[in-house]
Amino acid sequence: MLVIGEKINATSKRVAEAIVNKDAAFIGGLARQQVDAGADYIDVNTSTGQGLDQEIADLKWAIDVVHQAVHAPLCLDSSDPQALAAAAAHYSGGELMINSVNAEPERLEPIGRVAAEREAGVIALVMGEGGIPRTVDERVAAADLIMDHLKRLGVKQEQVYFDPLVLPISVDTDQGLVTLQTIEHIKSRYPSAKTVVGLSNVSYGLPQRGIINRSFLLMAAAVGLDAAILDPTDARMMSMVKVSDMLTGKDPACKGFIKAHRKGILVE
Amino acid sequence: MLVIGEKINATSKRVAEAIVNKDAAFIGGLARQQVDAGADYIDVNTSTGQGLDQEIADLKWAIDVVHQAVHAPLCLDSSDPQALAAAAAHYSGGELMINSVNAEPERLEPIGRVAAEREAGVIALVMGEGGIPRTVDERVAAADLIMDHLKRLGVKQEQVYFDPLVLPISVDTDQGLVTLQTIEHIKSRYPSAKTVVGLSNVSYGLPQRGIINRSFLLMAAAVGLDAAILDPTDARMMSMVKVSDMLTGKDPACKGFIKAHRKGILVE
Repeated sequence: MLVIGEKINATSKRVAEAIVNKDAAFIGGLARQQVDAGADYIDVNTSTGQGLDQEIADLKWAIDVVHQAVHAPLCLDSSDPQALAAAAAHYSGGELMINSVNAEPERLEPIGRVAAEREAGVIALVMGEGGIPRTVDERVAAADLIMDHLKRLGVKQEQVYFDPLVLPISVDTDQGLVTLQTIEHIKSRYPSAKTVVGLSNVSYGLPQRGIINRSFLLMAAAVGLDAAILDPTDARMMSMVKVSDMLTGKDPACKGFIKAHRKGILVE
Repeated sequence: MLVIGEKINATSKRVAEAIVNKDAAFIGGLARQQVDAGADYIDVNTSTGQGLDQEIADLKWAIDVVHQAVHAPLCLDSSDPQALAAAAAHYSGGELMINSVNAEPERLEPIGRVAAEREAGVIALVMGEGGIPRTVDERVAAADLIMDHLKRLGVKQEQVYFDPLVLPISVDTDQGLVTLQTIEHIKSRYPSAKTVVGLSNVSYGLPQRGIINRSFLLMAAAVGLDAAILDPTDARMMSMVKVSDMLTGKDPACKGFIKAHRKGILVE
């Protein structure tokens, strides 16, 4: 399971303050913590609501800070395609992921071009303008639109990380299965493409959310999930990552699991 | 998830002693504990190695003891088809499961007849004489043989609980996926049939077995597992049963999960 560390995100008040105050020690520290805990990519989102120019300036600053702090590849995260294109142009540090596009052409076009040029990963939410589709078929249809468009721009199937989308089961108890089935359908339709989720939506509105989120990670891994955006400093969650890797044949001779056990970091 | 309580099994030294000494209080207590903890079926295995006649006598005794102690249906468990047939004839308490057959005709024939007559569930290990097949295809082939034979005897598809078989991943790291894929194949091939596993084999030879077994339950639930043979007094395992039911749409309005949370029995 590829782990994308989610902690540098301006939706967190403390992170937003650090971005506004250009607190490089704090942001760099968050990057290091996550890499030390096992993150493969570091997500960077600097949308503090001060407009596009500020967001771009902040993204560039944060990219430099993180790049100095750690050697991990970055996952540039914005809802604005212009911000993402500008950030990607600024970042010369090698491997890169872009978070995110959806089926809307005005997002696919600029991000797809950058992704093709940079051979970057692209997180693709399987939705269009109308919001999150409730059915598997509609989500797979959005995946088809996205893949067609990206392919035309020269993005390879293996660069695409489809996000099957997760809705709260407290609102609709079928939504757990909808996400799992969307992962399975996409994996069989696009065998070289990857799938990625953010987990925490699934437990929205329910108590004991940690146990739900961790369980859903295991269930998604069982149907072929490749990557997750999560807090790698959550030791319980990272224990599930290690166990799911072992149980899906991704941990040769169970060495990663046994090593984690010996370190005492597998939380029951 | 249908929970089959595994605790009344003569492979446990304490249980074997209670069977030999006809300790009805102990065996009845184990049945009650398991039902109180949420077991749907109570497995009863009395094979103490004293020969067939003794096993049959002990099975009959244990059936009566459990039947007096609780109202849950029984899962009669023996490696000997004659013992199972005799026990089924003795048990008049209603709903019944028989554990187990495999693809061998000399097992399928007597057990299939009893199951057809009693409309009992049958646990069917997807293996033949040659031991546990290592591949998905061989296991599905065994399932085909079993279903053909049972159908001829009048057993309905919905009575059959296929056990996809679990081998230790410490020996072969592909075996987790083999079991998961066998569940998926069987569910798509026989949509009315059920699947059931015993979990603990998966973690044989590894440390922190509980976390592995619980994780594997969630992963199997994600691909359609219907039932599990487990210790229902293991609160962590039962928490996973509740979460997996909720995440697979089997817990309308999340009521079971929320009730368990309020009771304080969901272990993080």
